[in-house]
Amino acid sequence: MSEQSVAIDELRHLLDGHWEDLRQRARTDLEPEWALGEPGEPVEAQRERVHRQLLELAKRDYGRIGFPRAYGGTLDYGASCVMFEMQAYGDLSLVVKTGVQFGLFGGAVARLGTERHHQAYLEDIMTARLLGSFAMTEEGHGSNVQQLETTATYDPDTQELVITSPTPSSKKTYIGNAARDGRMAVVFAQLVTGAENHGVHAILVPVRDAGGNALPGVTIGDNGVKAGLPGVDNGTFSFDEVHVPKDNLLNAFGDIGDDGIYVSHIEGKNARFFTMLGTLVRGRVCVGGGSGSAAKKALAIAVRYGAQRRQFEAPGSDDEIVVLDYLAHQRKLLPRLAKSYALSLAQNAVTERLQELHGTPRPEGQEEDKVAQRELESRVAGLKAVTTWHALDTIQACREACGGAGYMAENQLAQMRADVDVFTTFEGDNTVLLQLVAKGLLTEYQSMWGDLDVTEMVGMVTRQVAEGLVERTTGRAGLQRLVDAAKGRDDESAMDDRGWQLSMFEQRADHTLETVGLRLRKATKDNAFELFNGAQDHVLFAARTHIDRCVMEAACEAEDGMADGPAKDLFGQVLSLYALSSIEDDRAWFLEHGRLTTTRSRSVTAAVNDLCRALRPRALDLVDAFAIPDALITAPIAQL
Amino acid sequence: MSEQSVAIDELRHLLDGHWEDLRQRARTDLEPEWALGEPGEPVEAQRERVHRQLLELAKRDYGRIGFPRAYGGTLDYGASCVMFEMQAYGDLSLVVKTGVQFGLFGGAVARLGTERHHQAYLEDIMTARLLGSFAMTEEGHGSNVQQLETTATYDPDTQELVITSPTPSSKKTYIGNAARDGRMAVVFAQLVTGAENHGVHAILVPVRDAGGNALPGVTIGDNGVKAGLPGVDNGTFSFDEVHVPKDNLLNAFGDIGDDGIYVSHIEGKNARFFTMLGTLVRGRVCVGGGSGSAAKKALAIAVRYGAQRRQFEAPGSDDEIVVLDYLAHQRKLLPRLAKSYALSLAQNAVTERLQELHGTPRPEGQEEDKVAQRELESRVAGLKAVTTWHALDTIQACREACGGAGYMAENQLAQMRADVDVFTTFEGDNTVLLQLVAKGLLTEYQSMWGDLDVTEMVGMVTRQVAEGLVERTTGRAGLQRLVDAAKGRDDESAMDDRGWQLSMFEQRADHTLETVGLRLRKATKDNAFELFNGAQDHVLFAARTHIDRCVMEAACEAEDGMADGPAKDLFGQVLSLYALSSIEDDRAWFLEHGRLTTTRSRSVTAAVNDLCRALRPRALDLVDAFAIPDALITAPIAQL
Repeated sequence: MSEQSVAIDELRHLLDGHWEDLRQRARTDLEPEWALGEPGEPVEAQRERVHRQLLELAKRDYGRIGFPRAYGGTLDYGASCVMFEMQAYGDLSLVVKTGVQFGLFGGAVARLGTERHHQAYLEDIMTARLLGSFAMTEEGHGSNVQQLETTATYDPDTQELVITSPTPSSKKTYIGNAARDGRMAVVFAQLVTGAENHGVHAILVPVRDAGGNALPGVTIGDNGVKAGLPGVDNGTFSFDEVHVPKDNLLNAFGDIGDDGIYVSHIEGKNARFFTMLGTLVRGRVCVGGGSGSAAKKALAIAVRYGAQRRQFEAPGSDDEIVVLDYLAHQRKLLPRLAKSYALSLAQNAVTERLQELHGTPRPEGQEEDKVAQRELESRVAGLKAVTTWHALDTIQACREACGGAGYMAENQLAQMRADVDVFTTFEGDNTVLLQLVAKGLLTEYQSMWGDLDVTEMVGMVTRQVAEGLVERTTGRAGLQRLVDAAKGRDDESAMDDRGWQLSMFEQRADHTLETVGLRLRKATKDNAFELFNGAQDHVLFAARTHIDRCVMEAACEAEDGMADGPAKDLFGQVLSLYALSSIEDDRAWFLEHGRLTTTRSRSVTAAVNDLCRALRPRALDLVDAFAIPDALITAPIAQL
Repeated sequence: MSEQSVAIDELRHLLDGHWEDLRQRARTDLEPEWALGEPGEPVEAQRERVHRQLLELAKRDYGRIGFPRAYGGTLDYGASCVMFEMQAYGDLSLVVKTGVQFGLFGGAVARLGTERHHQAYLEDIMTARLLGSFAMTEEGHGSNVQQLETTATYDPDTQELVITSPTPSSKKTYIGNAARDGRMAVVFAQLVTGAENHGVHAILVPVRDAGGNALPGVTIGDNGVKAGLPGVDNGTFSFDEVHVPKDNLLNAFGDIGDDGIYVSHIEGKNARFFTMLGTLVRGRVCVGGGSGSAAKKALAIAVRYGAQRRQFEAPGSDDEIVVLDYLAHQRKLLPRLAKSYALSLAQNAVTERLQELHGTPRPEGQEEDKVAQRELESRVAGLKAVTTWHALDTIQACREACGGAGYMAENQLAQMRADVDVFTTFEGDNTVLLQLVAKGLLTEYQSMWGDLDVTEMVGMVTRQVAEGLVERTTGRAGLQRLVDAAKGRDDESAMDDRGWQLSMFEQRADHTLETVGLRLRKATKDNAFELFNGAQDHVLFAARTHIDRCVMEAACEAEDGMADGPAKDLFGQVLSLYALSSIEDDRAWFLEHGRLTTTRSRSVTAAVNDLCRALRPRALDLVDAFAIPDALITAPIAQL
């Protein structure tokens, strides 16, 4: 292999991470006929095609990945996220349909259910003999799901649960597998025994008979045409006193005894519900990973086109210039390419963490590590928000960079763009998710400070932030040493000094969090909403910069693990481009807070331009290292 | 009427501008059945529907607007742009199809042709009896249309032009009306007589017979499915020695005499071609205006939904909060709403200017005002870029602000988003258009300075910019007085001081242009491309800030013309929100260039938040003032 090929392969290895073997297998396995769609087909044909492909995948045992081995599952839990990523190089309708069946529906049965459900259903779910829905969202409540209105009321006479949609706004909506294919649904509802509401629980509710007709009391609707994901049959459910045996309650976290008494090992209905939701965190990992793949595929298409397409002559020449040689074109594509690298490595890190916490049985008697779980949830939520927005923005930039050709369905960007759009909304609205991240960070703050008054706190802030939070988020001591070495000489550091870059990410995140904490501590009972609301932009910025920092740290750790050589050097430039673009985007903040001088701020822009120029000759290599199966890139403009 | 209604009506009047009567008529005329589409219909059904609606519009004489009265045209030239805007509240496929037929095809015949063409074709074009295409773009050349490869070679023996597509990349593509309906095309081709190439000219070429079959030598293809605009039949043309009479040359700017000799009153083939293109500037005016309407409609939908939708309880309350009460939600919608107002007024200004320059016959013997024409072209190009990007960004933000509901086709945002996407590309790629703007500004620079050397120039820059360019772009002395009054007290001005805001827009544009001019003056023959390319981001920023300033000035002039009262006060807040959001977006630049202190920069952000809060109670009024016909807003989530 040439030195160039070696470097590409080393970068692929870096990006592939822990599940490299699985990814390599998927690259040859994912045949176009059961991974790609046909844009422009009518909705019904798309749904039929995706349904057929889903069965095909199940036939090849893809549905078994990540389920317990005791019930016929294969591979590990994290592997199911990686497969979602790999499949996302193909048709996203199929990926989402697969995610609904095996991830959301199957995952809920596996994680929220117990042996009786596993015995009864897992084999049929993994083989797609039983297709199901995950019925959480209601017309009135998408984000604030604690306030779902559907009820599941225990009837002691029949030992059944009675599922009811009491209001028009309690109608379940946007539910995948609902409009056409689902036979059963995991329905989230307020569980009521006697006069007591125990909060939201999940109940298995059959919705269609074997012939596909809605069961008595179940009204099924069709959400019809959407912006994208035409192959997913999103629909609605309403329930009019639908009776199911009480054993259909997915009872891992709360149960109704034969005596009709509700029991749970978790106190408090909110805590209980959020614990249940926490076990379903994988869905967000998948959505982040899948959108990351879509961004990579868009970049591969746009970079390959940009490296061939010529427009406008150079002065004094009759030859037209390759468009990727224009700085403006490089600026559209290369910083986004760099960010795709960084996000990919952060995605690997959370997937591994998910595997550690959820994919490995806890030794007998060992308690769940609640702090670790909360951190994982927060990281996943934030990374999902940042990655899905990145994907949307990147696919759009790629579309525009490909001009009119980018608008044609055959060049694949159009459908991806339309499909990924809703990734910013489902599995948690991005803005709400970032608030969740901020809330988590601020809660740690509060518990750290207890009852100190504000004056005392101001004095402590710098120390605490520097010593406490920082060390926890920086996984490795090695990175911290880099940062420490850079401190105090911000202005003299070279632009590619990794320690300086890291320290900028750190300062941005810490100072923002610190000041938002100070603002919010002034809250009293009477002004809480106004105060919080007035700081909402600040709160969201704190969350985003925290995630940016986590991403940067994950990428630096990956770099740390590389052997010295051309691949590491190349990746180093990519990482600098990511870091400096991010600093450039927020340079107003750095200037306002005295972390950049005006001269140095302008040097950041110059350095981004320099890196674009430097990486231009490697742009094709960098998208090659994504190792997207060639058969899935059918865009005529991307053929070399 | 209540004071509130009076204010809404006054704002509507302000936005309606010069063609208020026409807009008011259109509001009642535009019936849903021939203005709306049906998302999700198969492509063929969409095309059929749009074709039918086009004929319906023609039957109601909409096709006659803006054509010469001598040939049966009605209303004036600018009115055709205004109708495009109004129609854009309906289905955008229909708008684009209409634009292709009456604007591009009909407009080319009217503007590039002469009496013989007008006599022969205009009546049939206006009535849509003759459907046609505007065949400029080729597979190899979209932006650099001077280098089109199609040839039209004069054959003296037959006095015919022979149209040929010499290479695969010379295939005409993305041509509206080509795949299904067009019978004739205005084909742009290199005109060759003898051995001489006279540059690109437009020739009328019949492409289908009455039965709809391609004529001999014409190969017609179908671009198939696109990201949006499903009702427009974009397709391809290739020509294999197609003969047409030489009289089919649209000969307003160049002709072939009966002696076979080419004649033109314009020297130089590039100058000639750009003069021809300049007469077609209306297309860009329309695209800007139409995308502005789409943004307004999206805002109307999202604001109406946001003012009803509730999510999450306020602390200490069981009531959920209306989502538009959240600062983050206001930040998503209200600055974009304010920008829509400002862009709308700038759009009115260019439309009026177009009417003055192109819609009014020049008195006998009076030369064309070339400077005014060049300025118009530049303004239109820049405004088209800024407005189409704004529309894309705004519709997307509205989609996200409406959550899952925004993704459903019935809520109208999805199709608009997909349709408007290509508005950033067609009628000139936005990035290329901004470069055109910059080029125009820099050319003025160069001619102003002539041969001064760089040192001399540095000394002159401040004076020249302050005295020369500024006065020319600021239309009214009144605005200049406001700016002058604010100068020198930047730091003390109130945030809502219009003079200070204007002066910030002015400083940003002038200084950027000035410094880019200095950078580029260092160009020599050997380094020209590298130098220009290295400054490309700077060049694009100069263009954008110039357009921002033109927009701000147009909005300020509109404000100036309002009578004192509640409507003016309300508009004043809207305009401040536009101005301060723009300053906030670029505050890094202002900080880097010492035009904002760090304290004041942070105050800008605070002021944007304050204005969002202040305008929140008027958000519904502000979208009501767009006066979008209720019948065209069918989104269930937007019903009050």
